Amino acid sequence: MNARSSWAILGAAGYAGGELLNLMLNHRRAEVTQVVSSSAAGRVVGEVHPNLRGLCELQFAGELDLDAGEHLDGIFFCGRHGDAMALIPALLERHPDLRVIDLSADFRLQDPGLYPEWYGREHAAPELLASFAYGLPELNREAIRGSGRVANPGCFATAITLALAPLSRAVSPASTVTVTAVTGSSGSGALPSARTHHPTRAATLRAYRPLAHQHTPEILQSLARLSPGGAAPRIAFVPVSGPIVRGIYAVCQAALPDGWDAQRLRSIYKELYADEPFVRLTAIPADLQVVTGSNFCDLYVDAQEGLAVVIAAVDNLVKGAAGQAVQNMNLMMGWDEAEGLRLAGGYP
Amino acid sequence: MNARSSWAILGAAGYAGGELLNLMLNHRRAEVTQVVSSSAAGRVVGEVHPNLRGLCELQFAGELDLDAGEHLDGIFFCGRHGDAMALIPALLERHPDLRVIDLSADFRLQDPGLYPEWYGREHAAPELLASFAYGLPELNREAIRGSGRVANPGCFATAITLALAPLSRAVSPASTVTVTAVTGSSGSGALPSARTHHPTRAATLRAYRPLAHQHTPEILQSLARLSPGGAAPRIAFVPVSGPIVRGIYAVCQAALPDGWDAQRLRSIYKELYADEPFVRLTAIPADLQVVTGSNFCDLYVDAQEGLAVVIAAVDNLVKGAAGQAVQNMNLMMGWDEAEGLRLAGGYP
Amino acid sequence: MNARSSWAILGAAGYAGGELLNLMLNHRRAEVTQVVSSSAAGRVVGEVHPNLRGLCELQFAGELDLDAGEHLDGIFFCGRHGDAMALIPALLERHPDLRVIDLSADFRLQDPGLYPEWYGREHAAPELLASFAYGLPELNREAIRGSGRVANPGCFATAITLALAPLSRAVSPASTVTVTAVTGSSGSGALPSARTHHPTRAATLRAYRPLAHQHTPEILQSLARLSPGGAAPRIAFVPVSGPIVRGIYAVCQAALPDGWDAQRLRSIYKELYADEPFVRLTAIPADLQVVTGSNFCDLYVDAQEGLAVVIAAVDNLVKGAAGQAVQNMNLMMGWDEAEGLRLAGGYP
Amino acid sequence: MNARSSWAILGAAGYAGGELLNLMLNHRRAEVTQVVSSSAAGRVVGEVHPNLRGLCELQFAGELDLDAGEHLDGIFFCGRHGDAMALIPALLERHPDLRVIDLSADFRLQDPGLYPEWYGREHAAPELLASFAYGLPELNREAIRGSGRVANPGCFATAITLALAPLSRAVSPASTVTVTAVTGSSGSGALPSARTHHPTRAATLRAYRPLAHQHTPEILQSLARLSPGGAAPRIAFVPVSGPIVRGIYAVCQAALPDGWDAQRLRSIYKELYADEPFVRLTAIPADLQVVTGSNFCDLYVDAQEGLAVVIAAVDNLVKGAAGQAVQNMNLMMGWDEAEGLRLAGGYP
Repeated sequence: MNARSSWAILGAAGYAGGELLNLMLNHRRAEVTQVVSSSAAGRVVGEVHPNLRGLCELQFAGELDLDAGEHLDGIFFCGRHGDAMALIPALLERHPDLRVIDLSADFRLQDPGLYPEWYGREHAAPELLASFAYGLPELNREAIRGSGRVANPGCFATAITLALAPLSRAVSPASTVTVTAVTGSSGSGALPSARTHHPTRAATLRAYRPLAHQHTPEILQSLARLSPGGAAPRIAFVPVSGPIVRGIYAVCQAALPDGWDAQRLRSIYKELYADEPFVRLTAIPADLQVVTGSNFCDLYVDAQEGLAVVIAAVDNLVKGAAGQAVQNMNLMMGWDEAEGLRLAGGYP
Repeated sequence: MNARSSWAILGAAGYAGGELLNLMLNHRRAEVTQVVSSSAAGRVVGEVHPNLRGLCELQFAGELDLDAGEHLDGIFFCGRHGDAMALIPALLERHPDLRVIDLSADFRLQDPGLYPEWYGREHAAPELLASFAYGLPELNREAIRGSGRVANPGCFATAITLALAPLSRAVSPASTVTVTAVTGSSGSGALPSARTHHPTRAATLRAYRPLAHQHTPEILQSLARLSPGGAAPRIAFVPVSGPIVRGIYAVCQAALPDGWDAQRLRSIYKELYADEPFVRLTAIPADLQVVTGSNFCDLYVDAQEGLAVVIAAVDNLVKGAAGQAVQNMNLMMGWDEAEGLRLAGGYP
Repeated sequence: MNARSSWAILGAAGYAGGELLNLMLNHRRAEVTQVVSSSAAGRVVGEVHPNLRGLCELQFAGELDLDAGEHLDGIFFCGRHGDAMALIPALLERHPDLRVIDLSADFRLQDPGLYPEWYGREHAAPELLASFAYGLPELNREAIRGSGRVANPGCFATAITLALAPLSRAVSPASTVTVTAVTGSSGSGALPSARTHHPTRAATLRAYRPLAHQHTPEILQSLARLSPGGAAPRIAFVPVSGPIVRGIYAVCQAALPDGWDAQRLRSIYKELYADEPFVRLTAIPADLQVVTGSNFCDLYVDAQEGLAVVIAAVDNLVKGAAGQAVQNMNLMMGWDEAEGLRLAGGYP
Repeated sequence: MNARSSWAILGAAGYAGGELLNLMLNHRRAEVTQVVSSSAAGRVVGEVHPNLRGLCELQFAGELDLDAGEHLDGIFFCGRHGDAMALIPALLERHPDLRVIDLSADFRLQDPGLYPEWYGREHAAPELLASFAYGLPELNREAIRGSGRVANPGCFATAITLALAPLSRAVSPASTVTVTAVTGSSGSGALPSARTHHPTRAATLRAYRPLAHQHTPEILQSLARLSPGGAAPRIAFVPVSGPIVRGIYAVCQAALPDGWDAQRLRSIYKELYADEPFVRLTAIPADLQVVTGSNFCDLYVDAQEGLAVVIAAVDNLVKGAAGQAVQNMNLMMGWDEAEGLRLAGGYP
């Protein structure tokens, strides 16, 4: 009998799945007992995630085995957007108590009307949306704790929402917050493409989908919830592909109302994030490298003459995906929130 | 006897000096006949700029030789800020007709009162400021043509001013334009420092001097000149050190007045830059790599629901320094403006 | 009427084709008049090679137009291995005097028996092999000058053969020369693949085909020709994929016979390469960056206590492909060998 | 009272010191209680190692406090070569039982006569050399277990010795093994220098000290010990600076005696390293990225027609420095050798 809680990873052959498997190896309360991937079925983990050779002896299965599942406490879904909403309802019908942490976008937006616009498809299970808690612990911890189902936030959304949540208390809901955020290539996944071809990615910066990135409604949904009137400032977000593998670096700017200076602005960040285990306020502008490999979100807050600058840095695969998923699991299970996540970033 | 125009480079051991020397090697009308550097005096060019071995046989001198200078048509100053204002007045006293292209910041700002604030020193030769044309050909071509003295723009200022000049015709002077711009490490110069230490620069993004970069007044000066009322929008500029060697990538955002959409915004860019040899409007967001090594400024213009996005990409050492200096020399001398500068960027 | 010699590029949508087109833009004696690519047919050059936007207005055709070809002086073939041997015989049948510079491997090996072993196919036109000169000017200049057909060397073969040609005069034909050579990702071409996926290429080194790379017989063929007895030392070559875009960096080691020291070894390099426009002997170990973007091969030669070290650095797309092709064209046409190729490498 | 073993780090402000501190944070049996650095005295750890902010609250002291040291079980010395031999004798005089793990080179070579030749100084404490075990557990485990003093191997020496130890059983002591090994920039330390200036390091490869690197005698000493006759093959080692931050990638080649093929060669690697927790034999050529951040040494072994190729990949700061130091501590203390070191490498 296994004393540790047992979890499965679906879509475990991708980068988020691999990072999650890695983090779970050192978790004291839970372990991964099934890794599922249609493309990698039959292979051992070390062939697909070579960094895990010698550390993990699991073999990929083509399908989740729920009959082995009397001991299965939950699943992480790391597959593609669209697949979660197709698969998860059937799983929950058979096992209504199965805990689900969905790293895809499929259950993040509460309004089903937003999916066709932002993801190009009707939602296949709108009746389940309300049962998913949005998995950004810093803003939604109690709901996560009480829930068996969590929609894990997007990587850009994690960085930008953490940057803007305190700021949105200060700025007018009628104002516009501009965001330019650079992402590493691992965010594009494990499948080679023109976007991630080394010869044309290694020494460039290249914006994409300016003002039209699909994480925008997710950010707005979070900010609106924080607002007494349910209104959020407008977000003008320009994502940029950068010559790095890991990380999100988001520079946010907004006009401040009269009476707000850097000190006052910082005070609301300190207040909101004082006890957060994974948010660090920095005295000098955040340095992306310092968070890569860790579950930290580093935030730098400044203001001059009525203009605010807030900079957020996260590792897209850790705080922006797998690390936050573990943090959510810890909360759902009532464990120490930081279990398995006390990892320093890379430096140098 | 030498049929080509003869120029000297002061501060020729730095990166801008080396790039300038490189560009001048293939110039058909001018050549560099003296390279001056106090630190490299006595060394041959190929020892300091190893890429020029076999292409340039000049030797660094510790001082400019003006007595060899009856044939000297002009000088490029590539030394440090502060040194130009100390050195150039004496040179001009002896040789009032010597053409001067100053790549330092010392003669860029017409208002001497700005130097203490932004550069930490009183201007040593305020009486000369009015004699320098600001060397951004796209906005100031006629003044450059008629002048013997040019203040070559800063690298950030080049990218951002070219991005904003048309936009500033659209937006209200009361509005704020936000700019997040990433720079390569070569912009920090040839001297090793903590900022450019490879282990902590190779995989990071790191903002610095947010809202306080010294190129801001230079941009504002240019925009104000373009405005009928002499007013410019506010610039909220956050510079970011990036994990690239070459290039500036500037993402600019602003609110548009009613009635402005992407098409209308693009039309003013097309109009203003239609005949420019070194400005290219791109149909998809600019790709930094494509301009590195070239004198091009690639501009991408977009707008959605009242928000404008303009992205500029330049090579900081070419269009942002040495290439623009050659372009200015060409204009001053009445030559083909693109002579020596028909260079494609690096791809891949 | 066109005063410049007219050339076509077949397979012009790839990286070597793009670099060749770029180099030819500044050539004073020749120009590219047709760019052929089955995949890019109908597109303009700037869409495929964005660095050439504004510099080249050609449009890709799906096939070579030989009827427009009374003025066509020659072709560069930049397509895939195997396609050249299928296509070129038919072209030469119609136009026996058409000059051909083939950048593929199809006509490099004189012995048709080597193709099945190293390239996995029988040679389709063995009768043509003898009519192709091997296009390494430093070793084969006279043959290239007198030929209408040139097989342009492989990138690894260029670097390693230039490194070893003088050395093979010193070492015993019975000895083994070991070579470890790192290549940039652009050598894998423009098509994304697992080998060039940025997340797993950006910070790694990874050998491939150790002791089995297909450039090995090409190197041996050249060295054997230089030897009085037709024998070459054995080459133990390990290629390594590196986290760079451009360049080949080859470290070669061999045992020296008694009586050979560094000075004596260097003297044969100096002698052999004294007048070469594109070979530079370096006083300190070669620095790859310094040659990227240029047609130079930098060579460092050292020896200690009977062991020789020779290091070669080239840009795989220039001296290792397109630049050498232009050099060969210059030789075939009787022009200045360095025309269009006086380019400094990138620094910084 | 503290139940965990207490250790101090001297020279804790450098990269190896920071990595060691990081690794020790998750160690279950030991903890760092003092961090000493003359340059960082008075600063908190998070200012110097920003990745450790929020994880470690220690403050740097200018000197080791041995009076607080009744509980001090041992020290790691991470300072400069030359300083260890000056400092450690005095420490040991006061506290003969203090365990010492020296990451500098000062106690690695048993023959004091080698220090002037390779490190430019006479050894200051030759009488202590014999008391230090060479800390490469795979070859010297029992000596480490029984010792209170360990000389932690150099990063190149770790990779190359692990690659060559089995090979040296096969090859003739009269033969020469050639090694070309690429190192990341973190190996040069935290102090900026021309060697690690990002603009000239980010896209280059550059050999240094060919055939003359100071780790050579360390490798030879280990190989000689393994040999029945005390003889080692000659090592012809060319180190290369690479455009990576972390890692050593060593390609070793040698001639095999008659009768040796790949299978036979691999069998001795499998035999020697079968039970090693941190050596992995790979089926395809080792991939550097896969080991960075981990304590693994990945080894690839191949042979063709009498030539052997062995490739080793390690993280220079982990298996090549701090990780191996922890492994040695674990052995000295009689703990699980892998405690604190079950870390996967970075992927992607």
